[in-house]
Amino acid sequence: LKFQTIADGSVTSAKGFFAGSVHAGFKKANKDLVILYSELKTSAAAAFTQNRAAAPPVSISREIVGYGDVRAVLINSGNANACTGLDGFENARMSQAAAAKALSLKPDQVALASTGVIGVPLPMEVMMQGIPKAVAALGPENGHDAALGIMTTDLSKKEFAVRLTIDGKKVTIGGMAKGSGMINPNMATMLSFVTTDAAVDPGYLKEIVAEVVESTYNMITVDGDTSTNDTIMVLANGMAGNKTINEAHTDKELFIEALYAVNEMLAISIVKDGEGATKLIEVEASDFQNKSDARIAAKAVLNSNLVKTAIFGEDGNWGRIICSLGYSGASFDLNDVRLELANGQGQSVKVFENGLPTDYDEAVVTELLKDTHIIIRVNAGNGYASARGWGCDLSYDYVKINGSYRN
Amino acid sequence: LKFQTIADGSVTSAKGFFAGSVHAGFKKANKDLVILYSELKTSAAAAFTQNRAAAPPVSISREIVGYGDVRAVLINSGNANACTGLDGFENARMSQAAAAKALSLKPDQVALASTGVIGVPLPMEVMMQGIPKAVAALGPENGHDAALGIMTTDLSKKEFAVRLTIDGKKVTIGGMAKGSGMINPNMATMLSFVTTDAAVDPGYLKEIVAEVVESTYNMITVDGDTSTNDTIMVLANGMAGNKTINEAHTDKELFIEALYAVNEMLAISIVKDGEGATKLIEVEASDFQNKSDARIAAKAVLNSNLVKTAIFGEDGNWGRIICSLGYSGASFDLNDVRLELANGQGQSVKVFENGLPTDYDEAVVTELLKDTHIIIRVNAGNGYASARGWGCDLSYDYVKINGSYRN
Repeated sequence: LKFQTIADGSVTSAKGFFAGSVHAGFKKANKDLVILYSELKTSAAAAFTQNRAAAPPVSISREIVGYGDVRAVLINSGNANACTGLDGFENARMSQAAAAKALSLKPDQVALASTGVIGVPLPMEVMMQGIPKAVAALGPENGHDAALGIMTTDLSKKEFAVRLTIDGKKVTIGGMAKGSGMINPNMATMLSFVTTDAAVDPGYLKEIVAEVVESTYNMITVDGDTSTNDTIMVLANGMAGNKTINEAHTDKELFIEALYAVNEMLAISIVKDGEGATKLIEVEASDFQNKSDARIAAKAVLNSNLVKTAIFGEDGNWGRIICSLGYSGASFDLNDVRLELANGQGQSVKVFENGLPTDYDEAVVTELLKDTHIIIRVNAGNGYASARGWGCDLSYDYVKINGSYRN
Repeated sequence: LKFQTIADGSVTSAKGFFAGSVHAGFKKANKDLVILYSELKTSAAAAFTQNRAAAPPVSISREIVGYGDVRAVLINSGNANACTGLDGFENARMSQAAAAKALSLKPDQVALASTGVIGVPLPMEVMMQGIPKAVAALGPENGHDAALGIMTTDLSKKEFAVRLTIDGKKVTIGGMAKGSGMINPNMATMLSFVTTDAAVDPGYLKEIVAEVVESTYNMITVDGDTSTNDTIMVLANGMAGNKTINEAHTDKELFIEALYAVNEMLAISIVKDGEGATKLIEVEASDFQNKSDARIAAKAVLNSNLVKTAIFGEDGNWGRIICSLGYSGASFDLNDVRLELANGQGQSVKVFENGLPTDYDEAVVTELLKDTHIIIRVNAGNGYASARGWGCDLSYDYVKINGSYRN
């Protein structure tokens, strides 16, 4: 293999990255304020929610990443600082300034991310008292604590890191993410932070991160709802000592592959822990006319409540898959479509071909669907473009969690 | 009032329309084969699913309506004749020919619609034996039987009719519809048939039906999945004796209003009976820049699983509504948005304004949400365009019905 998974890897596995994670009081218990810090100047690239009601921390971070040198990220869980009006912006600016001061940085070097309850003012006393504690807690071993600190009601922390060699130098890429959690009133926010000690040209990093995001975070879905706070950020501080990775670097593909792997792993861990999820659903869309068609086809299948409930019920209801392909907007001729259901154990059954269901054995399909990893292979027989996407089933628990019974 | 609801109205309330409805055997029990017949030549207008995997009856009816004179519609429930390949087309053509022969019509005068199980060949013996029985059952009083015959697992039949006066002549518009039902493997198909004895110019009818469909059937959603078999058809046979309604007719607005009312009522009855629905959700989107923005905003709110589950749980989680508006693609400034929650009893609470939640009483919202008709009023403060849309909540029963437990 070209790169190795680091056992116990985290967002501080890469050289020169520190994390501090404390319980400040945004949540009743558990860590809820995190500072991620880089010793050296970084190249930064990010992707943010396209939601028009984007929260103040998103607007501010978007600006900061544009400027260039992100040295720290201040992240709180338990309050999203969304739909909080002008005060929300002022509170975000004040938090940023306080963190910058405590870290001896300029405000424009500190990015922000918030997740949790919306429409409730950010409790500034909690924030102001928490910041120095989080700074005091900064350390190179605290990645796992950071992954815990950004959780809302995620059932498990999400972190992953790999090691590779570039220019004879040991390069590390590590990251943490959080997914769909529930606070009342809530929304499911996706946050992901990836750090690397590789030296990467800032413009080139933006380019490759944009591509990686398209194939990973933008190909996962829990319920099709895009939050006001979604943030993905990649920071590279160059401490590995490799020659700066750019378009001309001979090992650029290896780096991209490793960066892709870390982000794919984090993205998949988010849907695996989707609200009420009992099964990971993977769609492999192949032989479409173009990448965009393959992607919208995969997303339509993954977003279909009818497909999601069928998988939950372990019902091989392929008609719903064909139906969702049909309204996806992707171009294909039904007579060319081949559909295969498979699982994580390597079992697979072709259920549809040449415009007709095949003569498959229903019992085999039912057996196959008992696995917790279901793979739907859609071949459009219409070109050479492919895409993969990931989602989860729709269960009673999704309804229960999101129905927010207060009694 | 300009027009009156007909108590006990149906698809055969208008003069010269007959229905025959029998149990042919597509379903184990209950009526499942319907012929709708007009004594005289009709003006016909229709709208069909945009699904690329559209079923043969849809393709054939689309063609027929294009030709002009639809004299009959053959409708079966229990088998959708979708994903059935070339044989599916041949079976549809054969059914059409048999119905035409039994009715002494040309095949091109008989439209088709099917709903039910997909990927299973249409049982032609059942069809061929059923057709003469349905023809024998034709009568002007059988509208209610027809509404029963097109149901799959709809919990109640859906029909509505109104009477109005045009050119001193009594004009009737009546219709029937079916919504999201469940057969295993299934898909939820929407069928709607509206008849009128008004004389309407065929080109003008197509024009106004297209507009009415945009504001009614295209503004309802149960789960965002568009079926392979959706069909809406309006037939006008002129037996009322009015002067032909066209662009120049002085009473055209009255006719459109009445046509709209019948279709809106049928459309709403479909979402009310949505799978697992416990509440009707209505969205009034107003003061958007243009109609298209108002519509996509309303649809985004109605399609959000997070909004749907919150309403099911009677949780006034307005943040999810703002969030879905944010990703809808509609243009607005969050600071201009006003959001009001209301119910069918006339209670309402303003929860968001000027970019901030208002100082509302949570207990009042909770109380208000106990009603079975919830109205979400979104004002974008950004223009003069408005739209209304209807959906339903997402309940445990939706998951149960669609999980299709076989044990």
